[in-house]
Amino acid sequence: MQSRLDLFIDRMVSQRACLNAGAAMVANMQGPVFELGLGNGRTYHHMCSILPISDIFVFERAVASHPDSTPPDDQLMLGDVYDTLPLALDRFGPTARLVHADLGGHNRSKNDVFARAISPYVEPLLAKGGVMVASDKMYFETMTEVALPEHAVHGRCFIYQK
Amino acid sequence: MQSRLDLFIDRMVSQRACLNAGAAMVANMQGPVFELGLGNGRTYHHMCSILPISDIFVFERAVASHPDSTPPDDQLMLGDVYDTLPLALDRFGPTARLVHADLGGHNRSKNDVFARAISPYVEPLLAKGGVMVASDKMYFETMTEVALPEHAVHGRCFIYQK
Repeated sequence: MQSRLDLFIDRMVSQRACLNAGAAMVANMQGPVFELGLGNGRTYHHMCSILPISDIFVFERAVASHPDSTPPDDQLMLGDVYDTLPLALDRFGPTARLVHADLGGHNRSKNDVFARAISPYVEPLLAKGGVMVASDKMYFETMTEVALPEHAVHGRCFIYQK
Repeated sequence: MQSRLDLFIDRMVSQRACLNAGAAMVANMQGPVFELGLGNGRTYHHMCSILPISDIFVFERAVASHPDSTPPDDQLMLGDVYDTLPLALDRFGPTARLVHADLGGHNRSKNDVFARAISPYVEPLLAKGGVMVASDKMYFETMTEVALPEHAVHGRCFIYQK
């Protein structure tokens, strides 16, 4: 049986592989990149290493990240995602080229409820050809699940494209 | 440049590889196994998957682990390690076959100060042939650093044997 450490490593390795693949898929597109949830900022830090920092907007309820992984104030959408995602749609329209979300709680059924609830908030933000990388299965109507890249573990990360 | 996610994955992958290697090195020995620091219990959960749970004692100031990764009360040494490690030496003598410590703060120089301070508290606990797996370089007088196993990244984990 896999330990929690095994599962966690699979999740982190898959997340990195899928983010790298997602960034490559949208390399020729314009438009903002959205990170849903900042946490300690490790993943945001990685996104900043593969994408222009000025394109990345972070949605977070309250910032508690490592100082070297904290977005500039004007790229932080502070508040509940059910409020801030509609505000982002008003501001940006359907222009996002990449969205990442690590719902990442310990409770998979709770994550699934959250994934179902936020899917319709995320889907309209993406441009045609835009990509969503998620730690959980999402529930989209106009986006297609695409094959995982090398090193990503089936079921630990998901990639969708509009 | 490596992102914080890259470094973190290297550290987790190295930790698992070194713990698996350490457990194999002491497979024919008796004696307790000590986990210094429980955190959310992910590494303890892994240790329980490769070693008998009844052998593993955890040193922690205050338990804040995931419910499925919390040691039984009588295998928890609650308090400051500068108090509980000497108590463990009184109780067990130099019998430990495996000790793991993830000092794991963000601040490497602070980790190094802690590693220097705690090394003389750890060293006498180990039996002859016993192994220490650490996230940082330790400062031992009677233990030898041994080569890392496959998948472990140089500088992200250390193995010492008495």
